[in-house]
Amino acid sequence: MTASTTPPISRFSVPEIATLPDDIRARIQEVQDKAGFVPNVFLALARRPEEFRAFFAYHDALMLKDGGLSKGEREMIVVATSAANQCHYCVIAHGAILRIYEKKPLIADQVAVNHRKADISPRQRAMLDFALKVALRAHEIEDADYARLREAGFSDEDAWDIAAIAAFFAMSNRLANMSSMRPNDEFYLMGRLPKKP
Amino acid sequence: MTASTTPPISRFSVPEIATLPDDIRARIQEVQDKAGFVPNVFLALARRPEEFRAFFAYHDALMLKDGGLSKGEREMIVVATSAANQCHYCVIAHGAILRIYEKKPLIADQVAVNHRKADISPRQRAMLDFALKVALRAHEIEDADYARLREAGFSDEDAWDIAAIAAFFAMSNRLANMSSMRPNDEFYLMGRLPKKP
Amino acid sequence: MTASTTPPISRFSVPEIATLPDDIRARIQEVQDKAGFVPNVFLALARRPEEFRAFFAYHDALMLKDGGLSKGEREMIVVATSAANQCHYCVIAHGAILRIYEKKPLIADQVAVNHRKADISPRQRAMLDFALKVALRAHEIEDADYARLREAGFSDEDAWDIAAIAAFFAMSNRLANMSSMRPNDEFYLMGRLPKKP
Amino acid sequence: MTASTTPPISRFSVPEIATLPDDIRARIQEVQDKAGFVPNVFLALARRPEEFRAFFAYHDALMLKDGGLSKGEREMIVVATSAANQCHYCVIAHGAILRIYEKKPLIADQVAVNHRKADISPRQRAMLDFALKVALRAHEIEDADYARLREAGFSDEDAWDIAAIAAFFAMSNRLANMSSMRPNDEFYLMGRLPKKP
Amino acid sequence: MTASTTPPISRFSVPEIATLPDDIRARIQEVQDKAGFVPNVFLALARRPEEFRAFFAYHDALMLKDGGLSKGEREMIVVATSAANQCHYCVIAHGAILRIYEKKPLIADQVAVNHRKADISPRQRAMLDFALKVALRAHEIEDADYARLREAGFSDEDAWDIAAIAAFFAMSNRLANMSSMRPNDEFYLMGRLPKKP
Amino acid sequence: MTASTTPPISRFSVPEIATLPDDIRARIQEVQDKAGFVPNVFLALARRPEEFRAFFAYHDALMLKDGGLSKGEREMIVVATSAANQCHYCVIAHGAILRIYEKKPLIADQVAVNHRKADISPRQRAMLDFALKVALRAHEIEDADYARLREAGFSDEDAWDIAAIAAFFAMSNRLANMSSMRPNDEFYLMGRLPKKP
Repeated sequence: MTASTTPPISRFSVPEIATLPDDIRARIQEVQDKAGFVPNVFLALARRPEEFRAFFAYHDALMLKDGGLSKGEREMIVVATSAANQCHYCVIAHGAILRIYEKKPLIADQVAVNHRKADISPRQRAMLDFALKVALRAHEIEDADYARLREAGFSDEDAWDIAAIAAFFAMSNRLANMSSMRPNDEFYLMGRLPKKP
Repeated sequence: MTASTTPPISRFSVPEIATLPDDIRARIQEVQDKAGFVPNVFLALARRPEEFRAFFAYHDALMLKDGGLSKGEREMIVVATSAANQCHYCVIAHGAILRIYEKKPLIADQVAVNHRKADISPRQRAMLDFALKVALRAHEIEDADYARLREAGFSDEDAWDIAAIAAFFAMSNRLANMSSMRPNDEFYLMGRLPKKP
Repeated sequence: MTASTTPPISRFSVPEIATLPDDIRARIQEVQDKAGFVPNVFLALARRPEEFRAFFAYHDALMLKDGGLSKGEREMIVVATSAANQCHYCVIAHGAILRIYEKKPLIADQVAVNHRKADISPRQRAMLDFALKVALRAHEIEDADYARLREAGFSDEDAWDIAAIAAFFAMSNRLANMSSMRPNDEFYLMGRLPKKP
Repeated sequence: MTASTTPPISRFSVPEIATLPDDIRARIQEVQDKAGFVPNVFLALARRPEEFRAFFAYHDALMLKDGGLSKGEREMIVVATSAANQCHYCVIAHGAILRIYEKKPLIADQVAVNHRKADISPRQRAMLDFALKVALRAHEIEDADYARLREAGFSDEDAWDIAAIAAFFAMSNRLANMSSMRPNDEFYLMGRLPKKP
Repeated sequence: MTASTTPPISRFSVPEIATLPDDIRARIQEVQDKAGFVPNVFLALARRPEEFRAFFAYHDALMLKDGGLSKGEREMIVVATSAANQCHYCVIAHGAILRIYEKKPLIADQVAVNHRKADISPRQRAMLDFALKVALRAHEIEDADYARLREAGFSDEDAWDIAAIAAFFAMSNRLANMSSMRPNDEFYLMGRLPKKP
Repeated sequence: MTASTTPPISRFSVPEIATLPDDIRARIQEVQDKAGFVPNVFLALARRPEEFRAFFAYHDALMLKDGGLSKGEREMIVVATSAANQCHYCVIAHGAILRIYEKKPLIADQVAVNHRKADISPRQRAMLDFALKVALRAHEIEDADYARLREAGFSDEDAWDIAAIAAFFAMSNRLANMSSMRPNDEFYLMGRLPKKP
């Protein structure tokens, strides 16, 4: 269970997994068992256990909950806003997850480059317009933005979800960019090929 | 223990405190005992208990920890970056805390309007330049930015603290702006008058 | 009658009041009698008597005249546009005057941070939207902007007033920023406390 | 002594010259005698006599005074900053004056389109860089900007002149843009042809 | 047949005309015969014959073809978008051609400074709005932009023409700016005076 | 030899290949023989044969020539600048070509999201910094930019190549965005897998 060390996965020091608190080690083990490798964000943030715990608790509260947005739609928000923030880690890692959830090998690249041209529904277009406004100029959000979401079929709780995901990744993108967090090589190809039978 | 209801403290529904989970009620009680009132952020976020817990765990991990930055300096970062994001709640609430920690009644308004003209040290100026770059164009952060921090006397752990606080409030500002979170009236005057003997 | 000299009130030299032309000395005496102190803008601009006279003649023509805008509304325009221009002197000095005219201790901070969230009327919102467009992208002003003002109840003369105040402070903000003009400490607290009986 | 009425010279009403106060009428007569026509700015601003007087007093204090900047250099500042603000009236009218003062028929168009490529001296390039910073982001002006001016041979008084002219036309450009002030047709060709003997 | 050498017409070397391939020499001879001088763009690009040929073939395909746009309207697009890109060569050279085609000595300066204030038809205003969106934020072009063109009377082929001209000069402006391509002095005055009988 | 018709490859009509002029049909046949499919740009531009010929003549002159830049480096410029312009077609199609030329499956995604974090040499970093300045603010290019290129080992001819490629794709990106040109599905996966033996 080691990360490739050339080039480094972070500008900051990365702890040995064996030295980590039990709960963090367990979380890392769990994701490795599921994904087959340890996504670098777990290693890069583990140097600050309190922050690690809060980060993933927040992430899970927003990304794993039930609600009006599908898991794929949540990942679309991550990819679109992270591309606007030019964040390597989040575009590439969450691009992989988006492809897998949506079972669409083209969707992540489309959303990352220009969501206006992506193969998405009008509802998803309205969702990403709102998410990008939260990401880039939240101070201008007004009643009209909420009205457009309702016209597209979103409830108030959905609106909170969209905004909160965009806000959480506003934080996450900045953490990844300031630390030069490197996405694992494995992410680049995930979800691009038909699943083996 | 009620919040003023006109105008509303959030665009979203705000739960009755009596209906909240015990730990959240306890946290709110604790802050009320200390501050004499309940800051609206606690009420506005309580509608989503999981997110509430993660938000404040993260906040405390960054703002209450020991380290190379004084508590006042941490609040300076919050005020400067929240002003850049035009966030009512964070500029006004954390402006109050900044005045109190620094015992300087002018500092918050100065940092909010233009940190380049504020009565701060060269070290604090370097800190805020870095924080604002994380807030506004983190994708351009490079070695030279870290070099400038080191020249100003900051360690690598300090650099992480500065960046992580700016990143956390990038999230917080967006949550407050999307929900039209209203700062309590009490904050506006706090720390502006000499403390009564 | 001296201003605090630490830190300096301007990057440029500030003349002794005794050395100033009579009319300028009289004007300064008048404002001191009224306010109880000499706002630094009078001292900072006095080094150029011709410019001083034109500046305050223009200021008075726009800010003291009768018309469709209340004095408080004029100050709102100053605070909103000066915050957009990150001008210490004008946000803090005119914020004080705004609080006093409107008898609202919260209004100046609200307008400075984000006028979209301030406790103002729809009419005042339309006024500030127009003023900020004059401040930030006057080259894009068109018929539709004037139509919106008329819908909000403003006459053509009101429109000129709004635009001219925003334009005058576009100048004033730049003078204050280029000279690092420092607002007097007195302004920060003015209008924040109930008036003594 | 009439202005062409199609298209209008201002979005606002323009007074009959005969109805104007004596001093304003005299000023207009004076400029007409000198230029051979009445520049529209005099007509467009005359509807507000107090503002007219302050505007031209300020203008003359900055543009007609002696000092380290030549009259042509002052007009260069006007043209460069007015082009950045996309102001018809000031680019075209002051472009004419610049050509005449500098006796260079190409200079105004060059400075208006991109001052970096204009046939100007390194000293003038430093002057325009500073003026454009005052025009576009005065809140970022710092010691280093003043140091560059001094290296280029400018005194502190020159620095004030450059900044004050850029600031005054920040106002003037906004007034012209909000009122759709139209430059006189005569300006377009002035200074482009060799003077008749 | 030489170009003025002070100041240089390009940051890059300019070949002797005698050394050029026959077809390029012929093209240059042709334009000289027609215009009375060799526009510098022909000399500046001739150093790369393959690129020269493709550049002018593309230019001619867009600018000389028949279609719904008049030749003057095509030049309006060039002047408006080149001014937005701050390109000396294209604003000044194509400004001359625009004046000549439209027989309007004021039009080029008006369009260059701010097309919103120019003496153009509503149809031409819609055309330039679209062209400037292609020039500055083509990634945001959507159905609504095409709908506005149709309302203004443009066909789909006209829309392509407008966009393609804006796109071609996006390239051309960048080539001129990177090479500091200098417009010939002759262009500045062309089309400003009534044609001699 | 057909393009997928759902969704369409362009907002504009696409001609039947059989109806095209011989030289264009031959060019399309040639690329199909080489790539195994017809890239949509050939079909989308074929509706205007003159423009098609000039476009590909220009493209080939810049991208297929010998010189100081490797073919992979040329494609890096395309991907970096096209991502800045949010152009689906060019990021995805040229991303594929970049992966193939460089034999690096990760490079295109890295360069597209944030070239500052990509696995490239310092020389290539300097190349992309210059190319992005040409793409985004060519009017600010100055001697210092050329000096940095020379320090990184680039000749003057290399500088022209970098700038000309960035300029050509400034045009190409706008054409693709205005026409909603769709990249072929085949491009997404090309160069991501080890070549079969």
